Amino acid sequence: MKPTLKIIKIGGNLLEDKKLLHQFVENLSSLKSPFIIVHGGGKTATQLAIKLGNTPKMIDGRRITSKEDLDIAAMVYAGLINKKLVALLQNKSINAIGLSGADANTILSEQRPVNQIDYGLVGDVKKVNSTFIHSLTVQNICPVFCAITHNGKGQLLNTNADTIAAELAIGMSLYYSTELVYCFEKNGVLMDVENDKTLISEVNLKRYQQLKNSDIIYEGMIPKIDNCFYALKFGVSKVQIGNIHQLKNNPSLFTSFTL
Amino acid sequence: MKPTLKIIKIGGNLLEDKKLLHQFVENLSSLKSPFIIVHGGGKTATQLAIKLGNTPKMIDGRRITSKEDLDIAAMVYAGLINKKLVALLQNKSINAIGLSGADANTILSEQRPVNQIDYGLVGDVKKVNSTFIHSLTVQNICPVFCAITHNGKGQLLNTNADTIAAELAIGMSLYYSTELVYCFEKNGVLMDVENDKTLISEVNLKRYQQLKNSDIIYEGMIPKIDNCFYALKFGVSKVQIGNIHQLKNNPSLFTSFTL
Repeated sequence: MKPTLKIIKIGGNLLEDKKLLHQFVENLSSLKSPFIIVHGGGKTATQLAIKLGNTPKMIDGRRITSKEDLDIAAMVYAGLINKKLVALLQNKSINAIGLSGADANTILSEQRPVNQIDYGLVGDVKKVNSTFIHSLTVQNICPVFCAITHNGKGQLLNTNADTIAAELAIGMSLYYSTELVYCFEKNGVLMDVENDKTLISEVNLKRYQQLKNSDIIYEGMIPKIDNCFYALKFGVSKVQIGNIHQLKNNPSLFTSFTL
Repeated sequence: MKPTLKIIKIGGNLLEDKKLLHQFVENLSSLKSPFIIVHGGGKTATQLAIKLGNTPKMIDGRRITSKEDLDIAAMVYAGLINKKLVALLQNKSINAIGLSGADANTILSEQRPVNQIDYGLVGDVKKVNSTFIHSLTVQNICPVFCAITHNGKGQLLNTNADTIAAELAIGMSLYYSTELVYCFEKNGVLMDVENDKTLISEVNLKRYQQLKNSDIIYEGMIPKIDNCFYALKFGVSKVQIGNIHQLKNNPSLFTSFTL
């Protein structure tokens, strides 16, 4: 039987909140199985962009990554957030290493082709270098990925952190029984988005369709949950969404996904 | 006999100049021995600080690293410059990995103690994790270090890139015959700083003293050359200073140091 590896994606709210972040790092240090962290940081990037007078470009409500946006993303994701998080983990004796997809060619992507929309410097994941990542995890080194990849031709690309987490979980399933956990500010998928007590503990593909049809799952949750099912289809053992606080205490409080 | 490992420090001018940077990366791809890159980036950091209205703090002409300065350094060194450089190297089939000292605990430092001056969040190197770095170089992975370290207690620290290069060369001499190369915009140590043809090809400790006494070596060159002799004293096989252009063409045009 393969050993377990958790791939934990954390979002913006956690990274903004110093107390919450310290609690998260504390929780991690009590985990028994090895893990990989994937983080975003869009809010901090937006704040920096505003300070620099760089207005985000939107087409049809979709954000476009210009050259300046990519520089800001590289600074905030790969620099500020990634290295601060690594230093915090080191303080808890978790031997973390911060990585972008360019580092050791860990995540190769290709620039999203222009169909109706030109998203700019955005990459879709093509290949995960699971051999190198495995060489780290077997040494008890914890990879911490930011949402930056590269195309192998010298260009960094902005890449969705949820997708990176799913692709890492799929890629690492060669060596491990992988468990993908999306942590965010809610307890999971909720019947009433305003009420954390209305947790739906399990969602299969059929239920997902019903929940979408009745507008209980909508907007930003749809691509997130699409990633969950994508990961399950391609070999990930377990996929969950839930609140960061529950990571240590009671993971059964998360929403789990099944095909 | 130990194999050779070059530790190449590159400075601000190179990183600012796109054409020069591409030439440098091209030159690297023709090197026969493995190498480690160490880079600064102070100029880009200063430009960003000015844009953000963050005036550098100086005491007695020495720069102090505030919390805000450290954030900017983490963004510019560990994020923007490091990842762009790694992507450019990957494009030349050099399997680079960008690292701060916090990553895999590669460079542990301690905050500089307050004597006459409180330098703020500045770290002096305490320990290089040469075992982990060696595990990369034997896999033909090229470490690219930025000038950020950590204290092991959760705090990132701004650290002089010349010193990092010297400490890495010393630390890696456990496994390799290490050659330290400081690349900058001049051909090496010059009799006349304005004339690149007045290169002094070799400087020993006695000559160094003479050149300092006659003000031929002065200001910023003194700590740089102190690092050269420090490295030689602690086991580095070869130490040179010179122009990046010569790295490929004719390294004999560099200034070499001997004890």
